[in-house]
Amino acid sequence: MSNKTFMKKALALAAKGKGRTSPNPMVGAVIVKNGKVIAADYHRKAGTPHAEIRALKKAGNKARGADLYINLEPCCHTEKRTPPCTKAIIESGIKKVVTAMIDPNPEVSGKGLEELHTAGIKTETGIMEAEAKRLNEAFIKYITKKEPFVILKIAQTLDGKIATSRGESKWITGEEARKYVHKLRNEVDAVLVGIGTVKKDNPSLDCRIRGGKNPYRIIVDSRLQIPVASKALKHNDGRTIIATTKTAHKNKIGLLKARGASILAVKEKAGKVDLKNLMKELGRLEITSVMIEGGSSINASALSGRIVDKVLFFMAPKILGGVDSIPSIGGKSPALLKGALKLKDPQIMNFGEDILVEGYTGF
Amino acid sequence: MSNKTFMKKALALAAKGKGRTSPNPMVGAVIVKNGKVIAADYHRKAGTPHAEIRALKKAGNKARGADLYINLEPCCHTEKRTPPCTKAIIESGIKKVVTAMIDPNPEVSGKGLEELHTAGIKTETGIMEAEAKRLNEAFIKYITKKEPFVILKIAQTLDGKIATSRGESKWITGEEARKYVHKLRNEVDAVLVGIGTVKKDNPSLDCRIRGGKNPYRIIVDSRLQIPVASKALKHNDGRTIIATTKTAHKNKIGLLKARGASILAVKEKAGKVDLKNLMKELGRLEITSVMIEGGSSINASALSGRIVDKVLFFMAPKILGGVDSIPSIGGKSPALLKGALKLKDPQIMNFGEDILVEGYTGF
Repeated sequence: MSNKTFMKKALALAAKGKGRTSPNPMVGAVIVKNGKVIAADYHRKAGTPHAEIRALKKAGNKARGADLYINLEPCCHTEKRTPPCTKAIIESGIKKVVTAMIDPNPEVSGKGLEELHTAGIKTETGIMEAEAKRLNEAFIKYITKKEPFVILKIAQTLDGKIATSRGESKWITGEEARKYVHKLRNEVDAVLVGIGTVKKDNPSLDCRIRGGKNPYRIIVDSRLQIPVASKALKHNDGRTIIATTKTAHKNKIGLLKARGASILAVKEKAGKVDLKNLMKELGRLEITSVMIEGGSSINASALSGRIVDKVLFFMAPKILGGVDSIPSIGGKSPALLKGALKLKDPQIMNFGEDILVEGYTGF
Repeated sequence: MSNKTFMKKALALAAKGKGRTSPNPMVGAVIVKNGKVIAADYHRKAGTPHAEIRALKKAGNKARGADLYINLEPCCHTEKRTPPCTKAIIESGIKKVVTAMIDPNPEVSGKGLEELHTAGIKTETGIMEAEAKRLNEAFIKYITKKEPFVILKIAQTLDGKIATSRGESKWITGEEARKYVHKLRNEVDAVLVGIGTVKKDNPSLDCRIRGGKNPYRIIVDSRLQIPVASKALKHNDGRTIIATTKTAHKNKIGLLKARGASILAVKEKAGKVDLKNLMKELGRLEITSVMIEGGSSINASALSGRIVDKVLFFMAPKILGGVDSIPSIGGKSPALLKGALKLKDPQIMNFGEDILVEGYTGF
């Protein structure tokens, strides 16, 4: 049993908290003695005990002399809801702490391990670091940039079309791909669409998996045109945010608020919601991740506004064709081919007959 | 050693003839005695001995009492350049013939095996039939429909763009994908482009792999606008065909013929070359396979004209975006999403960072 084996277990446990720990990271902790796991647990939800605290409590006195595997550096700071984990680790008698990565928060980064080291505990870091960073990519973006990690999700034909010329888009991809999108909605803090999609498709933007949670619904509506009867406003769970400009007509605001929607007036750019500014505002609301499920225009604005971290192209093995049908990315193209955005670390997955190509923008 | 093992060997041998046997099929023959391969060979080129004749010659007297594995039913008809293989098989003393598939030519289909059976030879067919049909898919189309098997090849960004708004398209995909395209040019009888591509990109349309053969170059040029200095006309190998309409201006014909090009005037449809009719004409010229490497318009015409058998979407992990850039399939889209073309048997391959999604139209 190697370091990697136990860290893999810690990561798998951490991942169980997907969609539930925000604005905290996902963390798993595994306590090992004589080559055997004696206790393990993970962080369930912001405001509840951290993974290492849960695991240490399970281990009790047996923790003395044991090794602790944890995918993220234990916290040492105190400006939060729970006491620092370093203190509990030192008191438990743990003799070695192995972490996958240090805390990405630049203000605390490395201080937790330092504190443990000072207390005479052996420390080691960097085991399965790439996997750990991937798992908490949203948290890392949020904690370092104070803005949400943004996923741009597209469902298109092979030839890059998301709808017919009349706007018909249901459904391009198959059931398995759509089910995966609902799984993602369960994992992200928010989904975002443009007013065009709301008016055309009237989506509920909910998460239809058993035990799933509905994400925040962000509707970018520069001129506050949203129909009051829109399905996106029917949830009445206080999780609908209409992002608009300060110059939009205010006559509907009362009605929208009565339906439980919050109105977020952000800076404008060429008469429209400035998406970059919107992301800053969402960061202030502790929204750590956003999945854009919009149309051709908002997809293009999100890319040209450089707010996108990761793109997901779901592709059905279909050809729609036509210069008249709707391309996945609208807007204006770069003058030169070298102006095209090259994705970093592209990956392919299969969903039934559909494929998903995902990659990072590197913005 | 099973039937399948020997048939696999026959198929692998057959495939060595790729791009060389047209208008004949690719055929491999394996002679087995006491569970051991005693002779094996394949068809090299139309007009030269068939695979089974070559293998029988190698085996000599040892063929007596042996089994013959061959991916295609041996020929029995005589209206061709070589004598029927059934005769040679019967004379050799072979006691059993195993084939992957019967001859797809409806006029002879099954008669070869019947002749062998009548002569007291055991016969068996259908071993690795799917693989055998895939290998000779072009021959099967040609021999049953008297038209070439048509591959539509596209190199695009993830969002379905083949060029910038100014027409820049070099290069969207990487070296490995482009190398594979040259391998395909070595295998097909002809490549086809529209006059738009000739005028814009001035392609050589040659095969740049060691020992490769240049395919026929078909240029669809309804109004006979091709510049006489085009690179596609520089080969002087008698393999350039300019497909035009009967109403095109004839003033350039002398110059084009002087450059070794053939002019093929076909039926027109709305003032343009009728691609379906062109395919019939190419079939008459014994061109069994065509790879379309055209632009947005010809790709759309080929699909709406239902001449395409197989599509190849090479996709680079890039996003170009823009309603102004060039989509892979132009033309007019169907009114309804259910009018989209759903590919049959889609497959994915990797070429460096690019992917290839291929599938069949089922037309």
